[in-house]
Amino acid sequence: MQILTTVEAMRRWSETHRAAGRRVGFVPTMGFLHEGHLALVREARHRAEVVVVSIYVNPTQFGPTEDLDRYPRDLERDRRLLEAESVDALFFPPSDQMYPAGACTFVTVEGSLTAGLCGAARPGHFRGVATIVAKLFAAVRPHVAVFGLKDYQQFRVIARMTSDLLLDVELVGFPTVREPDGLAMSSRNVFLSTDERARALALPRGLLAAADALGAGAEPSAVLQRLRAELEAAGGRPDYLTLADADSLVEVTAREPGRSVVLAAAVFFGRTRLIDNRVATLG
Amino acid sequence: MQILTTVEAMRRWSETHRAAGRRVGFVPTMGFLHEGHLALVREARHRAEVVVVSIYVNPTQFGPTEDLDRYPRDLERDRRLLEAESVDALFFPPSDQMYPAGACTFVTVEGSLTAGLCGAARPGHFRGVATIVAKLFAAVRPHVAVFGLKDYQQFRVIARMTSDLLLDVELVGFPTVREPDGLAMSSRNVFLSTDERARALALPRGLLAAADALGAGAEPSAVLQRLRAELEAAGGRPDYLTLADADSLVEVTAREPGRSVVLAAAVFFGRTRLIDNRVATLG
Repeated sequence: MQILTTVEAMRRWSETHRAAGRRVGFVPTMGFLHEGHLALVREARHRAEVVVVSIYVNPTQFGPTEDLDRYPRDLERDRRLLEAESVDALFFPPSDQMYPAGACTFVTVEGSLTAGLCGAARPGHFRGVATIVAKLFAAVRPHVAVFGLKDYQQFRVIARMTSDLLLDVELVGFPTVREPDGLAMSSRNVFLSTDERARALALPRGLLAAADALGAGAEPSAVLQRLRAELEAAGGRPDYLTLADADSLVEVTAREPGRSVVLAAAVFFGRTRLIDNRVATLG
Repeated sequence: MQILTTVEAMRRWSETHRAAGRRVGFVPTMGFLHEGHLALVREARHRAEVVVVSIYVNPTQFGPTEDLDRYPRDLERDRRLLEAESVDALFFPPSDQMYPAGACTFVTVEGSLTAGLCGAARPGHFRGVATIVAKLFAAVRPHVAVFGLKDYQQFRVIARMTSDLLLDVELVGFPTVREPDGLAMSSRNVFLSTDERARALALPRGLLAAADALGAGAEPSAVLQRLRAELEAAGGRPDYLTLADADSLVEVTAREPGRSVVLAAAVFFGRTRLIDNRVATLG
């Protein structure tokens, strides 16, 4: 596995493969890899001849009071995991490569896609996400990029940005990978105590039951109310629980049979904020 | 000359030439071409094997009270002029190609580069410029792009955006092309009456004299005051007259011998707003 640390080297590597007619697959990550990331890598492998994974903890998508400094890192372990997956290149740039001195250019996706959910709870977060993904696409020049659908809103924002900026990258959203007991895999799960970890199961369980109820025609407000009560009973502190249109992410409050929706949640267990979601069709 | 009206066709055309090892040169315009544009085309020709010119009047860089609707257009004439220059491709996209339905992604350059001059006088203007140039670069995929330095601030903004977003495009700023009497060429000159056209010469003459005075060590405030008086005596209505650092565009008010500066102005003659500038080294 090649380890590339400059934009110039990354670009050259990618151009060489492109010129040879090979499709370049890309999985952007913030490192501290888990099975969810590795599933994305395998998906990229199915869709491309060579696979690049990036590891970059992007400061501009963290708020001033968030966990940038304590975001978990373990490059050696990540490297071993990626080598075991036969990843062709690891792009691991220092910050001055991604944000040249004096950098002041930002990409923003406006409107309903970023107004609610994590956009409301984490001001500036999606500006950071859209900006860094635009830069990573420019450096890596992939034919196809794979993102996890645990970050459902992130995927919608990136898809909009990619299409609006006319970027020639095919996007693939990959279903959330879960632990055997249902907890969505996340680099942040490592912060949960044993007790918090057990209580956090209320999140995937509650979302699944709520999605089933919505599919069976239950009233959204009643479903959300019950979900909130279940999460709070488990000691969770909901940051938001939102039912939104699956495409536009405009909030959905009424029963509209046949409408595709996403039920998305961010919940604190202790100091750790977990997100998860379920897509459903209203019954 | 090929005329391409879709992003897909533009991209294919460019990729074919790139794959064949030919450098792609690019001159983005809003059409109604004049000698200034043609000088940019010739410069692109010197620096690349194939040349693309785009004509697109970008709505997002016009304010609500500006001249989008009356911006001059003459595609047939433009086409003849470009064919006479042996331009290889004209990219002439309809708006739904550049702004897909529901487009809501914008590129902004923050800070001193966009705070003053036209950025202050035309809120949102450079957001529109940075956004459309990012999109044009994504569609055209040039190796080199040539811009006129009459729009000095625009060039600085685009250069910052290109470097910040890690776009692999070489930028060339080309000196302002002037009429024999000194008026900077502009598509908007056509709006000047004969009388306004004569009075508008106060702008290039005043800027040149002021730049000379600054180079000789004159006090900036006195120079600006005299320039304003001259423009007003000619019936001009200054929108702004600003002395700024040539790189950062931070306003310069004191005499700092050796500092590279740009003296930039936007002045109305009648309803027509003209811009012009001179770069100087403070004496």
